[in-house]
Amino acid sequence: MTAPTRLEILALVGMPEVRPGDDIAGLVVEAAAGSLPAGLADGDVVVVTQKIVSKAEGRLVAIDPDDPAGHRAVVDEESVRVLRRRGDLVISETRHGFVCANAGVDVSNVARGFAALLPEDPDRSARRIRAGIGARAGVKVAVIVSDTFGRPWRRGVTDVAIGCAGIGAVLDLRGSTDGAGRVLAVTEVAVADELAGAADLVMGKASGVPVAVVRGVQRSWLRRGEVRAEIVRPPAEDLFR
Amino acid sequence: MTAPTRLEILALVGMPEVRPGDDIAGLVVEAAAGSLPAGLADGDVVVVTQKIVSKAEGRLVAIDPDDPAGHRAVVDEESVRVLRRRGDLVISETRHGFVCANAGVDVSNVARGFAALLPEDPDRSARRIRAGIGARAGVKVAVIVSDTFGRPWRRGVTDVAIGCAGIGAVLDLRGSTDGAGRVLAVTEVAVADELAGAADLVMGKASGVPVAVVRGVQRSWLRRGEVRAEIVRPPAEDLFR
Repeated sequence: MTAPTRLEILALVGMPEVRPGDDIAGLVVEAAAGSLPAGLADGDVVVVTQKIVSKAEGRLVAIDPDDPAGHRAVVDEESVRVLRRRGDLVISETRHGFVCANAGVDVSNVARGFAALLPEDPDRSARRIRAGIGARAGVKVAVIVSDTFGRPWRRGVTDVAIGCAGIGAVLDLRGSTDGAGRVLAVTEVAVADELAGAADLVMGKASGVPVAVVRGVQRSWLRRGEVRAEIVRPPAEDLFR
Repeated sequence: MTAPTRLEILALVGMPEVRPGDDIAGLVVEAAAGSLPAGLADGDVVVVTQKIVSKAEGRLVAIDPDDPAGHRAVVDEESVRVLRRRGDLVISETRHGFVCANAGVDVSNVARGFAALLPEDPDRSARRIRAGIGARAGVKVAVIVSDTFGRPWRRGVTDVAIGCAGIGAVLDLRGSTDGAGRVLAVTEVAVADELAGAADLVMGKASGVPVAVVRGVQRSWLRRGEVRAEIVRPPAEDLFR
């Protein structure tokens, strides 16, 4: 991986509350015009949180906020395989192949009485937003749809990529040599996840900034990319399923 | 978490090859003077890869590069619990409580015939580097020692924090409310891991930049912090051990 020597991570302030049917690309372009010195530019990586993508796509289901059973039923519906269950917490695999808490079903930052589901196809969501930004602003950006996942063995959550477009999700360094001329053994860097986590640093879980822009990534990273094809690990090659 | 609206990630170019006994803090201050417009500043987060910390601390062991058994013996020695084994790959728990491939024993970017072990106490390593930078440059920085770990369920590696000083490893948002006024359920963000991953984006596995600086983090993040106390998940609360 040729790495850039400097990156900027910019919070996109001024995004309105997103509702079903809203056009994320249009809202991003508008907020960028007011929030970034010269709007979006070619090569920017636009990181959009899953929550507003799900809202715009109408991926909301009504639940009884006072009855945990309703939430549980939605989680079961969204799960293809339950890995662990402890009290109200379920770690399960979604249709997309993500392993996460509660199958990604989330009630935070959603109106009371509703739960947000993951987008049906977050890579497709990213491609649509990317195309929309291109059409509206005439710039070629990459788009990452991010979500907040826990991890086994480590406390705390981090943001990771659940969809992407216009950027490789994983950079394959197989065959590269390290500084000592030795062929690198571990070579595949999940750049989309590192970018999602970096973007989270300027969002803040409580401050309601759902979009950030990473500026300065290497041009060679900008290619066709997909989280599902590149990052989701098939169960057969997974030591922990 | 109050999040900054803008962060910069800067590669520290010009670090020399590190040898046992070298003073990382001094090398960082020197490289920063040549690489950053005005050197290091108060509030900068200095991310240092494990490899050069291990080298400076002399955490190298001789192995026969042509005999895999030698490497395996070192991995076993560094492991307190083996979680999975497949072919040459071992996923094990280290004395520190990290779960990672090969107990963190690594031969990349190390002279042929040697393997690098993890620092004995990476939080202490971070504190020493932080104190050294303070003494030499008169600035209060935070320090994160990073390493490259794989993850279950997701392909690709990302950099995470194995030690830190002068910054919280996890920001506790328990009790914060989201944009809809609802108390947030998942509240602990592993900021140190997200910073380590962000720094990796400007390092590049193959380009030999072992230090990066993240500039612009919120002042409130800068407090006493420890990866071992905050991020390492005790086996008893872990669903995957």
